Amino acid sequence: MAFTEFRPLDEKLLIEYIKATPSLSSKIGNQFDDLTIKEVGDGNLNFVYIVVGTSGSIVIKQALEYIRCIGESWPMTRERAYFEALALKEHRQLCPDHVPEVYHFDRPMSLIGMRFLEPPHIILRKGLIAGIEYPLLAEHISEYMAKTLFCTSLLYRSTMEHKRAVAEFCGNVELCNHTARVVFSDPYRVSQYNHWTSPYLDRDVEAVREDNYLKIEIAELKSKFCERAQALIHGDLHTGSVMVTLDSTQVIDPEFAFYGPMGFDIGAFLGNLILAYFAQDGHANQRNDRKVCQVIYGVGIVLQSYKEWILRTLEETWTLFHKKFTALWDQHKGGSGEAYIPEIYNNPEIQQLVQQNFMKDLFHDTLGFGAAKMIRRIVGVAHVEDFESIKDARKRAACEQQALEFAKMLLKERRKFQVMAEVVSAIASLHLQ
Amino acid sequence: MAFTEFRPLDEKLLIEYIKATPSLSSKIGNQFDDLTIKEVGDGNLNFVYIVVGTSGSIVIKQALEYIRCIGESWPMTRERAYFEALALKEHRQLCPDHVPEVYHFDRPMSLIGMRFLEPPHIILRKGLIAGIEYPLLAEHISEYMAKTLFCTSLLYRSTMEHKRAVAEFCGNVELCNHTARVVFSDPYRVSQYNHWTSPYLDRDVEAVREDNYLKIEIAELKSKFCERAQALIHGDLHTGSVMVTLDSTQVIDPEFAFYGPMGFDIGAFLGNLILAYFAQDGHANQRNDRKVCQVIYGVGIVLQSYKEWILRTLEETWTLFHKKFTALWDQHKGGSGEAYIPEIYNNPEIQQLVQQNFMKDLFHDTLGFGAAKMIRRIVGVAHVEDFESIKDARKRAACEQQALEFAKMLLKERRKFQVMAEVVSAIASLHLQ
Ligand SMILES: Nc1ncnc2c1ncn2[C@@H]1O[C@H](COP(=O)(O)OP(=O)(O)O)[C@@H](O)[C@H]1O
Ligand SMILES: Nc1ncnc2c1ncn2[C@@H]1O[C@H](COP(=O)(O)OP(=O)(O)O)[C@@H](O)[C@H]1O
Ligand SMILES: [Mg+2]
Ligand SMILES: [Mg+2]
Ligand SMILES: [Mg+2]
Ligand SMILES: [Mg+2]
Ligand SMILES: [Mg+2]
Repeated sequence: MAFTEFRPLDEKLLIEYIKATPSLSSKIGNQFDDLTIKEVGDGNLNFVYIVVGTSGSIVIKQALEYIRCIGESWPMTRERAYFEALALKEHRQLCPDHVPEVYHFDRPMSLIGMRFLEPPHIILRKGLIAGIEYPLLAEHISEYMAKTLFCTSLLYRSTMEHKRAVAEFCGNVELCNHTARVVFSDPYRVSQYNHWTSPYLDRDVEAVREDNYLKIEIAELKSKFCERAQALIHGDLHTGSVMVTLDSTQVIDPEFAFYGPMGFDIGAFLGNLILAYFAQDGHANQRNDRKVCQVIYGVGIVLQSYKEWILRTLEETWTLFHKKFTALWDQHKGGSGEAYIPEIYNNPEIQQLVQQNFMKDLFHDTLGFGAAKMIRRIVGVAHVEDFESIKDARKRAACEQQALEFAKMLLKERRKFQVMAEVVSAIASLHLQ
Repeated sequence: MAFTEFRPLDEKLLIEYIKATPSLSSKIGNQFDDLTIKEVGDGNLNFVYIVVGTSGSIVIKQALEYIRCIGESWPMTRERAYFEALALKEHRQLCPDHVPEVYHFDRPMSLIGMRFLEPPHIILRKGLIAGIEYPLLAEHISEYMAKTLFCTSLLYRSTMEHKRAVAEFCGNVELCNHTARVVFSDPYRVSQYNHWTSPYLDRDVEAVREDNYLKIEIAELKSKFCERAQALIHGDLHTGSVMVTLDSTQVIDPEFAFYGPMGFDIGAFLGNLILAYFAQDGHANQRNDRKVCQVIYGVGIVLQSYKEWILRTLEETWTLFHKKFTALWDQHKGGSGEAYIPEIYNNPEIQQLVQQNFMKDLFHDTLGFGAAKMIRRIVGVAHVEDFESIKDARKRAACEQQALEFAKMLLKERRKFQVMAEVVSAIASLHLQ
């Protein structure tokens, strides 16, 4: 049977669909008798079905014409599935270790079939809430960001390739528009979907709307987001788009992908790590005091707090990203990338100067976008489980308030920071007050 | 008869074509007996035919698969004609007073039929070489730039409209690529097409190639040119793309149009005015000493030099652009433009702050791109008649050297300038040495 036009899946239809689709049915060994199907709707936008058979498992993701967590009142094109599949395939080619394989894509059905990230894979955000350390996280995520961002930029690509790809991803405008609204606009105005921990944060939310300098900075970042086609970015790289085990890191859900500023991805990830940090005090005294845990290094055992681990991961992610990104740059500097032509940037001194210049700007973009992502998760439409799972509203508000103050400072003062260690110090010192 | 596939025009074919095309033949009153046809190939890329009949005239422009002034060894897609027609129509809608009407466009033939800009219209560059003052030039060109740039940016357009248009003009990548090469790359490396007034400028050309700080700045501008889809820019707005009389200013030849940084257009125009300024000493003592001429103001007659008029036009163009652009912004601030949403930018203080911020960045972009356009006209592949018409090579080199030194300073130090009057002072003082 064939599905030539869109139908929303249900369990029965899903099984029919898999039966009719060799690239999917082969993955479960063509065994349909003992299938278990579970819809795991913890994401915000789409429907995700885990299909487990006796000799294999797959994940099926389908986009509907609206945003799942809000409902039909907030329509959203199904074409996002097309861009998600495109980005997954492209990013997987560039970084196969950290992007799941796409087995099947069906455009009319807005349906992606992909690798099931088997247990113990969990969503990183949940791991952070549970206080679990991921010793390879910084290494892996920096690898993913360095490879995908470098290789889709003009540092690696020709102008011709770049513009062709930019044009294609312009088609994902509805999703860009959504981000432009929920990240760069709604938190700074009265909007029906905004919410916050009231009444504790009422004054803070008003203060965001009245802060002229904050609003100037957010305007600059919004322009960059809307205008600057620097690389194929994931577009939604928070800690809920990463699945992890102690030794595996997998990036999913790039439905917001388009050619935008690199700092938006790096900032999304780091900003969400900082949110996780500020939420820790709210989780303490539940299962775990979040104060001390064991870290096993080559040389022995060191005691440190989970919050310290988060800050170290923050710093290492940037430092490793910096290292890997500039290494790719050095390695490919004689290639087809047209931003810095080797005949022009032809001596070690200038090569170093342009890299420093580039990385400095990228660092400030990262801090700005990271801060913007933090703010919107506290006063905008979509919040994070890191805070939402703190049931005591007063405690939650205290955590959120600290995060919000830090994010506002970071957005406005980002150009004063030179290295990530300074950001880490600023967080640590603020928190000790 | 129909032309379903490409054929390069000759006079006979041209007449056949017009006869078969009502939108063209009607413009010459359907009279074919007394037609005069003149190919006016002073442009660099294409073939332009002026067709004059007894009861009307038209211009026919055709693109061939290569760059005319270089020949078949430098291929260039004919599709540029499509983007030229598209930009002409869009810019004319936004600014009908300063953009000629397109009567007809034929994509397979890469052929545009448009209004003949009748005598005494001449190319502005030629007027500047001849020492003619255009009292309305600053007023007109600032109007053109303000309207076309504002109305195709996110200050006026929604994200949806913007991305759709950006995607379309990504198709003009070959032309963008050409600019990226001849403006931002070739002048800074050894390239077979580069030339300069040798031997006088040999050392200067080498110095450009060895100036690390210059090369860092040009890299930043190149990235902005390739990545930042700020507005539908003309893409080649030098003084050879403007036709003028004392009371008319018409912008032609936007075949390089795409969504790029606004400062590239403003800089192209102003940079070429500065080139005209530096060329004046080379023209002096021919027909005109370029020292003193009469300017008739409402109140009487003032004596000033032609060079002063150029500098005044430089300053006025920016000042008027600034005024018109911010006036459009104020006027449309409740409209569909999504960059600065009125509920956020909701008080006069912040409205002023964001405008200042925006205009400051645009000013620095303008100076940077303007300087880059100057440099490439002295040491790159395509030079300007302003200098080329100075027959005495030593004299020409002296003019070019001064212009080149100024442009290098401007590119590197542009962020130190606050207002155009400072740039004008810098030019004037340099010239007195
Ligand atoms: N490939 C996969 N393997 C295992 N679980 C997955 C996979 N893809 C998604 N999930 C689960 O489904 C949830 C929602 O998926 P996601 O792609 O983030 O959807 P949304 O776009 O709605 O946010 C994830 O948080 C995760 O728990
Ligand atoms: N509409 C027009 N009316 C009168 N002359 C024109 C017109 N368009 C072009 N020309 C003449 O033809 C020359 C080349 O035209 P242009 O559009 O600049 O071609 P190119 O793309 O080759 O530079 C111009 O410099 C001008 O002299
Ligand atoms: Mg998700
Ligand atoms: Mg998603
Ligand atoms: Mg021309
Ligand atoms: Mg030019
Ligand atoms: Mg042209």
